[in-house]
Amino acid sequence: MDQAIFENGVKEVQLLPAYDDEHEGVVVEMDTLMDSNDFNVILRYSLSQWKLQGKKGVWLKLPIELVNLVEVAVKEGFLYHHAEPHYLMLVYWIPDTLSTIPANATHRVRIGAIIMNDKRELLVVQEKYGCFKGTGIWKIPTGIVEEGEDIFSGVIREVKEETGIDAEFLDVVAFRQTHKYFFGKSELFFLCMLRPLSFDIQKQDSEIEAVQWMPIVEYASQSFAKDSIFKYVNDICLAKVDKHYTGFTQLPITSFFNDKVSYLYVNKHDLNM
Amino acid sequence: MDQAIFENGVKEVQLLPAYDDEHEGVVVEMDTLMDSNDFNVILRYSLSQWKLQGKKGVWLKLPIELVNLVEVAVKEGFLYHHAEPHYLMLVYWIPDTLSTIPANATHRVRIGAIIMNDKRELLVVQEKYGCFKGTGIWKIPTGIVEEGEDIFSGVIREVKEETGIDAEFLDVVAFRQTHKYFFGKSELFFLCMLRPLSFDIQKQDSEIEAVQWMPIVEYASQSFAKDSIFKYVNDICLAKVDKHYTGFTQLPITSFFNDKVSYLYVNKHDLNM
Repeated sequence: MDQAIFENGVKEVQLLPAYDDEHEGVVVEMDTLMDSNDFNVILRYSLSQWKLQGKKGVWLKLPIELVNLVEVAVKEGFLYHHAEPHYLMLVYWIPDTLSTIPANATHRVRIGAIIMNDKRELLVVQEKYGCFKGTGIWKIPTGIVEEGEDIFSGVIREVKEETGIDAEFLDVVAFRQTHKYFFGKSELFFLCMLRPLSFDIQKQDSEIEAVQWMPIVEYASQSFAKDSIFKYVNDICLAKVDKHYTGFTQLPITSFFNDKVSYLYVNKHDLNM
Repeated sequence: MDQAIFENGVKEVQLLPAYDDEHEGVVVEMDTLMDSNDFNVILRYSLSQWKLQGKKGVWLKLPIELVNLVEVAVKEGFLYHHAEPHYLMLVYWIPDTLSTIPANATHRVRIGAIIMNDKRELLVVQEKYGCFKGTGIWKIPTGIVEEGEDIFSGVIREVKEETGIDAEFLDVVAFRQTHKYFFGKSELFFLCMLRPLSFDIQKQDSEIEAVQWMPIVEYASQSFAKDSIFKYVNDICLAKVDKHYTGFTQLPITSFFNDKVSYLYVNKHDLNM
């Protein structure tokens, strides 16, 4: 390991433990407590070495327990990249050329569940919090897809949590991309069609004010703009009742590089599957 | 404004400037330099007051210039929520009940462009960096959708940047959700069909090794697993040539609450539009 002698109390300076990434950069994942002055010396030395080696991006992951090192890193020129509750990722771009540091996650993923019973009734809720609070509007159940959760699983979970209804995922019938939705971030909202497997409502008290099966005509009679998503939920409902609307259904696919399975959503009908 | 007298040099303590959010919480956006000890006193006092007022989540936005305040906030119990290059957002959940703090952005959005000319040739590239580097694989042009960018715009921009080809967006023909893709985050990859408006290739040198129009049969003859996305790109190409594959096309819609336009992607064909 590279070493150097410094005069300010630190006898031997090693490079920070780092591994190479696929883009000619290095990744440092700090995991032991360190005095911020010691860290400063080692960080400076490491950066100088990486510069000589022609490295590009330097990633620095600091667990929240090492919050004392954040200020040092920023003063050496690091910028924030992203954060999760218990860590902060910083990044330093060494070359004089334009940074090709990849962007942070930009989108939250939310789902909405269109569930009809065979009486042409739609499962709808009124929410206790958020924008629709107090508007009297009945809307389809919606929720945030959790980290690592598939869309087709998330929508089933949210419906069960909010309404007590068990349901089967059919397809994604539409999606909406909205910008500057929260903290300047964007949102992808997937409208999913589900088939109910149970019908007795059990309301979640913490977030939901009311739940009911509502005739589609009644849902459609609420006062929405003609170009609102509510109008399209209604149109798609009716097209689905008439069995002539095809959305995207999930197919398991494997990665080119490993055995990891992920899901591709396609128009299976048009692929004759 | 609430005030208090402290003994440690700070004469009057005001609450941190804050505004209420829609979920019974408060948001503090710090914008002036402050000594970290002074900040500590004011932060403690503010938290005690907000506790008395029954507030729930406390959001604290610190520009990178105020990095000296990060350690204080964490030691008072704040966790990180998210970060962008020039700021860090922290959050503190006051009640004893389970936190309902919304999740950070979880997904990156990437696009892939399927572009065929009328000779049944597909526009394909070889990349200089990333997983496919050195594999010899010809793949469709792909890229990251930028913050605030629509999918249908992002895919046109990426194709132009990488290959010099002008193109028109037709529809989203499939999408894939992948987890633990970068830093534990997920990715949504939208496969888009485009119609070429120009045909002369101008390669981008920084990221692209080679570009060509490749006969679809040749693309399909590369060695991919039968359940890989490459196989479905080929299947969808062929279905499109035969004009029997319908994807999702964007429609402008307006918000229930304001005049903001966003785009809903639907199967227009099946809605008889």
